[in-house]
Amino acid sequence: MAPSTPRVVVKVDLKKKPWEQEQPLHNRWHPEIPSVAQVKAGEFFRVEMIDCMGGTVKDNSSSADIKHADLSMSHCLSGPIRVVDEEGVAAKPGDLLALEICNLGPLPGDEWGFTASFDRENGGGFLTDHFPCASKAIWYFEGIYAYSPQIPGVRFPGLTHPGIVGTAPSMELLRIWNERERQIEENGVKPFSLCEVVHQRPLANLPKAKGCLLGHIDKEAPEWERIAKEAARTLPGRENGGNCDIKNLSTGSKIYLPVFVEGANLSTGDMHFSQGDGEISFCGAIEMNGFLELKCDIIRNGMKEYLTPMGPTPLHVNPIFEIGPVEPRFSEWLVFEGISVDESGRQHYLDATVAYKRAVLNAIDYLYKFGYSKEQAYLLLSCCPCEGRISGIVDSPNAVATLAIPISIFDQDIRPKTRKVPSGPRIVRKPDVLKSTYDGKLPITKNPSCST
Amino acid sequence: MAPSTPRVVVKVDLKKKPWEQEQPLHNRWHPEIPSVAQVKAGEFFRVEMIDCMGGTVKDNSSSADIKHADLSMSHCLSGPIRVVDEEGVAAKPGDLLALEICNLGPLPGDEWGFTASFDRENGGGFLTDHFPCASKAIWYFEGIYAYSPQIPGVRFPGLTHPGIVGTAPSMELLRIWNERERQIEENGVKPFSLCEVVHQRPLANLPKAKGCLLGHIDKEAPEWERIAKEAARTLPGRENGGNCDIKNLSTGSKIYLPVFVEGANLSTGDMHFSQGDGEISFCGAIEMNGFLELKCDIIRNGMKEYLTPMGPTPLHVNPIFEIGPVEPRFSEWLVFEGISVDESGRQHYLDATVAYKRAVLNAIDYLYKFGYSKEQAYLLLSCCPCEGRISGIVDSPNAVATLAIPISIFDQDIRPKTRKVPSGPRIVRKPDVLKSTYDGKLPITKNPSCST
Amino acid sequence: MAPSTPRVVVKVDLKKKPWEQEQPLHNRWHPEIPSVAQVKAGEFFRVEMIDCMGGTVKDNSSSADIKHADLSMSHCLSGPIRVVDEEGVAAKPGDLLALEICNLGPLPGDEWGFTASFDRENGGGFLTDHFPCASKAIWYFEGIYAYSPQIPGVRFPGLTHPGIVGTAPSMELLRIWNERERQIEENGVKPFSLCEVVHQRPLANLPKAKGCLLGHIDKEAPEWERIAKEAARTLPGRENGGNCDIKNLSTGSKIYLPVFVEGANLSTGDMHFSQGDGEISFCGAIEMNGFLELKCDIIRNGMKEYLTPMGPTPLHVNPIFEIGPVEPRFSEWLVFEGISVDESGRQHYLDATVAYKRAVLNAIDYLYKFGYSKEQAYLLLSCCPCEGRISGIVDSPNAVATLAIPISIFDQDIRPKTRKVPSGPRIVRKPDVLKSTYDGKLPITKNPSCST
Amino acid sequence: MAPSTPRVVVKVDLKKKPWEQEQPLHNRWHPEIPSVAQVKAGEFFRVEMIDCMGGTVKDNSSSADIKHADLSMSHCLSGPIRVVDEEGVAAKPGDLLALEICNLGPLPGDEWGFTASFDRENGGGFLTDHFPCASKAIWYFEGIYAYSPQIPGVRFPGLTHPGIVGTAPSMELLRIWNERERQIEENGVKPFSLCEVVHQRPLANLPKAKGCLLGHIDKEAPEWERIAKEAARTLPGRENGGNCDIKNLSTGSKIYLPVFVEGANLSTGDMHFSQGDGEISFCGAIEMNGFLELKCDIIRNGMKEYLTPMGPTPLHVNPIFEIGPVEPRFSEWLVFEGISVDESGRQHYLDATVAYKRAVLNAIDYLYKFGYSKEQAYLLLSCCPCEGRISGIVDSPNAVATLAIPISIFDQDIRPKTRKVPSGPRIVRKPDVLKSTYDGKLPITKNPSCST
Repeated sequence: MAPSTPRVVVKVDLKKKPWEQEQPLHNRWHPEIPSVAQVKAGEFFRVEMIDCMGGTVKDNSSSADIKHADLSMSHCLSGPIRVVDEEGVAAKPGDLLALEICNLGPLPGDEWGFTASFDRENGGGFLTDHFPCASKAIWYFEGIYAYSPQIPGVRFPGLTHPGIVGTAPSMELLRIWNERERQIEENGVKPFSLCEVVHQRPLANLPKAKGCLLGHIDKEAPEWERIAKEAARTLPGRENGGNCDIKNLSTGSKIYLPVFVEGANLSTGDMHFSQGDGEISFCGAIEMNGFLELKCDIIRNGMKEYLTPMGPTPLHVNPIFEIGPVEPRFSEWLVFEGISVDESGRQHYLDATVAYKRAVLNAIDYLYKFGYSKEQAYLLLSCCPCEGRISGIVDSPNAVATLAIPISIFDQDIRPKTRKVPSGPRIVRKPDVLKSTYDGKLPITKNPSCST
Repeated sequence: MAPSTPRVVVKVDLKKKPWEQEQPLHNRWHPEIPSVAQVKAGEFFRVEMIDCMGGTVKDNSSSADIKHADLSMSHCLSGPIRVVDEEGVAAKPGDLLALEICNLGPLPGDEWGFTASFDRENGGGFLTDHFPCASKAIWYFEGIYAYSPQIPGVRFPGLTHPGIVGTAPSMELLRIWNERERQIEENGVKPFSLCEVVHQRPLANLPKAKGCLLGHIDKEAPEWERIAKEAARTLPGRENGGNCDIKNLSTGSKIYLPVFVEGANLSTGDMHFSQGDGEISFCGAIEMNGFLELKCDIIRNGMKEYLTPMGPTPLHVNPIFEIGPVEPRFSEWLVFEGISVDESGRQHYLDATVAYKRAVLNAIDYLYKFGYSKEQAYLLLSCCPCEGRISGIVDSPNAVATLAIPISIFDQDIRPKTRKVPSGPRIVRKPDVLKSTYDGKLPITKNPSCST
Repeated sequence: MAPSTPRVVVKVDLKKKPWEQEQPLHNRWHPEIPSVAQVKAGEFFRVEMIDCMGGTVKDNSSSADIKHADLSMSHCLSGPIRVVDEEGVAAKPGDLLALEICNLGPLPGDEWGFTASFDRENGGGFLTDHFPCASKAIWYFEGIYAYSPQIPGVRFPGLTHPGIVGTAPSMELLRIWNERERQIEENGVKPFSLCEVVHQRPLANLPKAKGCLLGHIDKEAPEWERIAKEAARTLPGRENGGNCDIKNLSTGSKIYLPVFVEGANLSTGDMHFSQGDGEISFCGAIEMNGFLELKCDIIRNGMKEYLTPMGPTPLHVNPIFEIGPVEPRFSEWLVFEGISVDESGRQHYLDATVAYKRAVLNAIDYLYKFGYSKEQAYLLLSCCPCEGRISGIVDSPNAVATLAIPISIFDQDIRPKTRKVPSGPRIVRKPDVLKSTYDGKLPITKNPSCST
Repeated sequence: MAPSTPRVVVKVDLKKKPWEQEQPLHNRWHPEIPSVAQVKAGEFFRVEMIDCMGGTVKDNSSSADIKHADLSMSHCLSGPIRVVDEEGVAAKPGDLLALEICNLGPLPGDEWGFTASFDRENGGGFLTDHFPCASKAIWYFEGIYAYSPQIPGVRFPGLTHPGIVGTAPSMELLRIWNERERQIEENGVKPFSLCEVVHQRPLANLPKAKGCLLGHIDKEAPEWERIAKEAARTLPGRENGGNCDIKNLSTGSKIYLPVFVEGANLSTGDMHFSQGDGEISFCGAIEMNGFLELKCDIIRNGMKEYLTPMGPTPLHVNPIFEIGPVEPRFSEWLVFEGISVDESGRQHYLDATVAYKRAVLNAIDYLYKFGYSKEQAYLLLSCCPCEGRISGIVDSPNAVATLAIPISIFDQDIRPKTRKVPSGPRIVRKPDVLKSTYDGKLPITKNPSCST
């Protein structure tokens, strides 16, 4: 009688490689990738996902797997899932898919994850000019809590969420993506001041056959090559949702996704046990294998009803979200501020990215005074439930951004006191994160005045 | 016996002009502006402040005062206040001032405020290329609540805070400011991609004698001219705090401000009954006259203990904050997302400012469907307690920013529904905000696909 | 143009005695007490109130004023306020008065309050059998925070609210009250098991001419004597609201009060800067002079629409409340439990009062281990924002009640640790509360096993 | 390398009866019940539990299983679990067991539960004199949410918790329990006024061999009979924790349990997907099979360090709790009040139980006006996350209790409005709860004035 247990529509086998899964995964966006499952509006279903690195990062004591990570293979998504209404009629372009996240978590028997920062020559991260080495921390889960042997002295409840949830793009939308991203890749850094402070490379990730997984489209199929060269990479969030990395998309959230192809073709992956706003170290959430339990509804013609295109075509839209009722509750926060003046002292114009970079750097140096290494602080602020806010965006020339850290995640009181910061070897947080050497030749940004 | 009632150290008279106040106000940052009052560490004291426009904006039915606003006069601050410890020894450069906001609010008998957007030729705002006209809405306060005759259908509790709180810069810091801001002003938009999407002008506001108020330094004094030409404008937040516009600096917050001059010389002003993250319409909080009740402590040598310079000198620091325990509680939020692709469809590189602009535009167009004019939505999102977050800052080429709006501030349910958005004249929110004509010739950014 | 500043409809002069106020106060409930002011539906108005003891308790270093308190004079209320609709038609019996608390606080210049426990012979308190002496602590307010010289080591934001808000009873309702309370007074403790554990006296407070203030009804008036003998005392909460002491009725709350007489005749008083659930020490909130800023609406025929009588007549109703959006936010709580077994080890049947008494006693003894005297803990738990819950009321024979204390109000970590409770003279909280001798002969309940 | 997945120390097989489980369950408290498993301090372990009725209540369309429920068999607990420290030394009497709930939930594949009210002749409930019939509602879980076909129009996130968690009593403590409960059973209602308003029967549940499960003690064992006659029933919460039904003991909570026997012998059961304060309908939570994931620490000598006996022996203690950081977040609450005057209009003395009964009755009648049957409202308020508070416990003669209901669990706005309650057949909530006939002869309490 009970419609209780969710139907498993995508199952993964953690003992197998991404390309060996029974229901094939895909790591590109393309309208022709066939659906692997179908769900009905109102149905309660479950999707399992492998982690963003496809199982290549191990629970061991080396960061070599991060240093040599193959990013062309990342984000193996579960899906596409075709959505039909209660009469069996598929979602149509122009509809909205109202997706509710009823439950989520790690896969039973696999309660761990990792936070990492890539080598500067291989993806980098928000602060890669400061931290060019690949680094890694392992997190173990005790129910709602995570702790890391590499970052002792912190333990916190996760705000678990999928990094990626999106619908398949239409061919028209796909072409828009490829065209605009090709332009930035080709025109390079020249007119883009931000490149002077955000050193992550490459500027964009264009379609590439290497590492491409296209689900049910077999590598031997005649169309494989064409699609692989057209299919968009999964890295950036775009009009279809995708890798939006919104940390508050946790249990009870609702996501209103535009539908661009018949059936909607929903895909999801990149589960995060926890993430801070910005996911600064890039592989920066607590990355894990996991599951989602979902329900969805179709709002017929909802794109027109609720969304307004923001750009030259009706496809230039963005999803809408409702935040769920169950999030870890923190009442005390320490807040770091940054303004859009960079480490060299140079003024930028209302640049929230620069301001946020400075806020994060301020926070890292602050935590360093309490015994954490800067690399520990970098990975911690990337994955703990901290809040990154755009506080002021109009007071020329300075944008003001803030980073708020929940105080209770630490086993010491990190608030400023009238007395000195307690210091000495006893509070140094050992061991440190796992680190590799940086063998590249790019310069490391030095903060001229900073400690050590 | 009781140390109860706070001592009023700065009093303002709303019937007088800013330059007529008994304790003179100042609207520039300069180390030589003499203090107007002194407080002791641990003392409970009160500071009154006039609104950011110095009383020139009236509770009337015209936006002419906004259109013709004289921005050279804005931000008349209360202070400087000299801080000494319990033995009477002044705060010293290198100390931290730990300032607690014990209470704040509008001035009794003056329970109203305004939200405005300047003319594009005269300051503009975050979306000035979309909304070039000066506009204004009046808000009336009923205790914790604000409502506006110009934006019917919303009422919300304020998260009241001072827009500006800061210490006086040293001459060295002042020179750093003036130099870096001059460079952006002089070099112009060329290498600054953001200028292509953020159209607010001018790029920076350099020292200017016109409109200058220097507190106890009389205009006839021999040094007036020199100081007026050196003294920094108050618009941007900087190393001394200043106009950081952090909406969560409400009752119970603590602010740790670096001390650059003997006595700290604390100044504050620009009270906001409420503000959304970003303060997007520029004169965008609910601006009001108001008061702060404060306590402060001196953390001797605290700059070195707790702050790390982020730039070429030990002065390149930023304040730290603790958020207070009393904020309006909202449990339901609707979230809009933006990516760093602009209205023309052009790709920007990890640009959180562009992404936030798109999130805000998405939200405005969404609210438009529920009967608000776009100008109403623009001012509302500027001043209501909405949250602007940097969600993803590493997924090249797209930064992802979000704007979360508390649902309960509306008198209708604005969530997407499977049924259509209710429409028709009955829900149009009349009257509209007060608007002036735009007489300039700059082009208006059109969103090619947007409604109306 | 602005309907901003609230109209002051009841003003008090703290330099005058309660019976000397220009707008006379009243300390009894009676339909014939004439209104002292009138407000319109939708109007924003302000009411000032004197503290529950009418100014007789002083900010000094003695508890003699508490020991010899004259309870016949307590609760001098502001009002009655007659309420009319926008057309000037008065609220009518059967309507509901929807009252919104827009703002509240202490009176400017009078930022202090007191928490006290009466002598066992003169009112007592929830634990009077344990603490028979009169005791008192003074609290000073620093904006949202309160601290007490007599209870060092705690400081907390208040959840400020009126202890009393109610409408005038009709004669019929008044007779019901007097009759049922007379019965308990006359029949005594016999069938009431609770009296064996709740030792507060007297059982009820019947109408009494002594100390009676009847507002505009002059003591010389012919009807004074009759009304004084009929008018209900203000101590208990009843069908009209009254002294319900609901700590969450703070800013932004709405109260739906039944109307029993034409004009509603709203009265309010007994302002509390803060109170814990139960207000256990009786004079147990942080009692203060204060003000309310209010709006009200009339819901015509709302008693029938929304309320259901619970008793023999249509008058046996209770008010409804909505909690406001601004309350201090605490995320960490330590919870004490009690079951309905009393200090002698005797079993009571599903008695939530006994269970709560035990929970409170547990908490007091726990805090004692952290350096507080038991009297300090008693007064603190009475007035700090702790939560008293009925957790289980069906598991015969034990009711389970809990008392949850916000951890962050203490300047030490009071959570249990694997290490010992820190002990020693240094943490003893000195000075203690102000205490009087107990000169009565009633036995003191001893907890046979408790510390000291 | 990872200490991730919790070790399952008690497993249940839902296809088997309680007495057929491989690891035997127990439904009595007795020191001689042998432990079924052992855990180490710091170890992360998992315990599975069957529901409070041992699987006898089915997901079907009849309430016959409730009507004829065998309460002598209820609360089959998982355990006892022996706890040792990291050196393998067992917990000792006088220690505190610090138990952390890291995770919990329903058993996979079994995502449903039930809320019921027993027949008045067979257990009853808090309002059994009003609702003498057995009734039942089935709840289905969609991740964090529950909904019921029998109570349409509500859906809410659960605040999942174990109803029972406790340590084994020593023989001395067991004798204290049996003695005090025997007294109330034998002396009957006479001196206990509450029995006049709380009609649940019997007054206590004394040891009884019928239905007794003693874990590893075989029914054929020579000591079985003796132990069965001594072993305490599980219904009431007591000094060892037990059935305390504290709804906030959810993920992240810590419980400090006194240790009375070597090894502590921890047992747990009676999982609740959700419960309101009071669990008023008795079988009143959303009862389910479930699991806990736990960690524990031993605080040596912690009973003396942290607890204070409240009664004649050192064993008269109660556990302490810390509330966890993850609870459903509700910002809007409608609050019902009750005073200690019963349905007949009779006055009771500071009786929180009577006051809470009236608050609950008020809320039920209120919801009835919005289309719910009273039985639906009764079961709903029993299991949804509503808060029951003791607001005033000193204002003779009336205790004031409140019941706060989160508004967002309803699909309609249940707040009072100036317009009428919407009415008509369309909003009647059909179908109703499953109901049986009441065949007993006890009178039904009538609220003389209530609707229908």
